Amino acid sequence: MANIFQRGMLIVAAIAVIGLCGCASMRGGGPDKVVYHINESTQATAVLRNIGNHLSVDPTAKIVVVSHALGVDFLMENAKDKNGNPYNIPVEALVAKGVTFDVCEITLKGRNLKKEQFVPEAKFVPSGVGEIAKLQSREGYVYLKP
Amino acid sequence: MANIFQRGMLIVAAIAVIGLCGCASMRGGGPDKVVYHINESTQATAVLRNIGNHLSVDPTAKIVVVSHALGVDFLMENAKDKNGNPYNIPVEALVAKGVTFDVCEITLKGRNLKKEQFVPEAKFVPSGVGEIAKLQSREGYVYLKP
Amino acid sequence: MANIFQRGMLIVAAIAVIGLCGCASMRGGGPDKVVYHINESTQATAVLRNIGNHLSVDPTAKIVVVSHALGVDFLMENAKDKNGNPYNIPVEALVAKGVTFDVCEITLKGRNLKKEQFVPEAKFVPSGVGEIAKLQSREGYVYLKP
Repeated sequence: MANIFQRGMLIVAAIAVIGLCGCASMRGGGPDKVVYHINESTQATAVLRNIGNHLSVDPTAKIVVVSHALGVDFLMENAKDKNGNPYNIPVEALVAKGVTFDVCEITLKGRNLKKEQFVPEAKFVPSGVGEIAKLQSREGYVYLKP
Repeated sequence: MANIFQRGMLIVAAIAVIGLCGCASMRGGGPDKVVYHINESTQATAVLRNIGNHLSVDPTAKIVVVSHALGVDFLMENAKDKNGNPYNIPVEALVAKGVTFDVCEITLKGRNLKKEQFVPEAKFVPSGVGEIAKLQSREGYVYLKP
Repeated sequence: MANIFQRGMLIVAAIAVIGLCGCASMRGGGPDKVVYHINESTQATAVLRNIGNHLSVDPTAKIVVVSHALGVDFLMENAKDKNGNPYNIPVEALVAKGVTFDVCEITLKGRNLKKEQFVPEAKFVPSGVGEIAKLQSREGYVYLKP
C-alpha cells in the first residue's frame, strides 16, 4: 500500500513540477525573445539602430524582425536609406549577431515581388501579421513597434 | 486511512492539473487571440486588409479591433476610405468571420459623437486603451499595431 | 507512516499552489501592468491623455512610459506641446498617480543630452527598447503604442 501512495505522490509531484517549468519558461527563464514589427521602410533605419542598441544592453536577446507591406523594402537587393547608405550592411551585421529578418509572402504576392529580389539574409513567412501573432502566442515573444 | 490519503492525493492532483490547464491556456493551447490597435483612421484600410490576410493563414484566430481617438472614424455610418470605398463592406465581412470591432466610449464623449452614428457592427467599451490592456493582461490576447 | 504520507502530500500541495500562484501572477491576479512606448514627441499629448483615460477606468493599473529617440523631448525642462502648454503639468499629475516616466540613456548619449536637462520626474534606463522588452518578458507588463 505504501508503495502505491508513494508512487501516486511522485506522479502528482511530477505533474506539479512540469506545471512550474511550463510557467517558468513563460516568465523569462531563458533569454528575452522579441519581435520587432515593421510595416513601413521609413522606420527601417530606426529599427536597425534600435536593435543594435537593444543587443548592446542584452546580447543574448533573441530578436526577430517581421516585415510586411511597405516594410519589406529595406530587405530588397540594393535597398538604400534616404542618405544613400545600403541597408544590407547593418542587416548583415545583425544577422551575424543572431537576428532574423522575416518577409511576408502575402506582401510578395500583393506587390508582385519575387524572393530573388531580396537579400540572401531574408527569410519568408506565410503572413507577416500571422507570424507576429504566432511568435507572441505560441513562442513567448514580446512585441515592439519602433 | 487509505481512503483519506487517496482523496488527498486526488485533490492535490486536481490542483496541479488546474494549474497546468491555466498555463496551457496562456501558452496558446486554444486559438490565438489578437488585439489590433487603431487610433488613426488612416490606418483603417491597412488594418482591415491585414486582418483578412491574418485569417487566411489562421482562420481560427480570435481577433478584436480596438479603436479610439481618430481611429473610430472608419466605424461611423457611411465612412469611406480615401478612394471613396465604404468601410462597412469589409467590416461586415470580417464580423461574419468572428472579428469584433470595439469603439472607445471616452472618445465618444471627448469628440461629442453618439453611438447611433456608428455602424450596427460596432461595439462599445468604456476605454479603448483600458480594453487593450485588459485583453492582454487578463484574457491572453497578444498585440498588433498595424 | 501516516505522517510521512501527510507531510509528502503537504509538500506536493505546496508545490502545486506555488505553481498556481506563479500562473496567477501572469494572468493578471494583481493590477494590470502596462508599458506605454513613445519614440516621437508628437505622440506625447495623445499618450498623456490616453494614460489619464486609462487610469480613469482602471485606477490601480501600474503604468510605465518608456521614451527613446525623439520621444524623450516632452520630458525635457520647459518642453511645451504645439499649443504652447507645458508638458510638465500633466506629467507631474500622472506621476502623482503612480505613473513612471523612463528616458533611454542611449538616446542621451546619441543626441548629446544631459540628465540635468530633464524634469525631476524623469527616470533613466540603460536602453529604452531593452527596458520595454524586459518589462514585458520578465515583469508581466503588456504593451501599448499610442
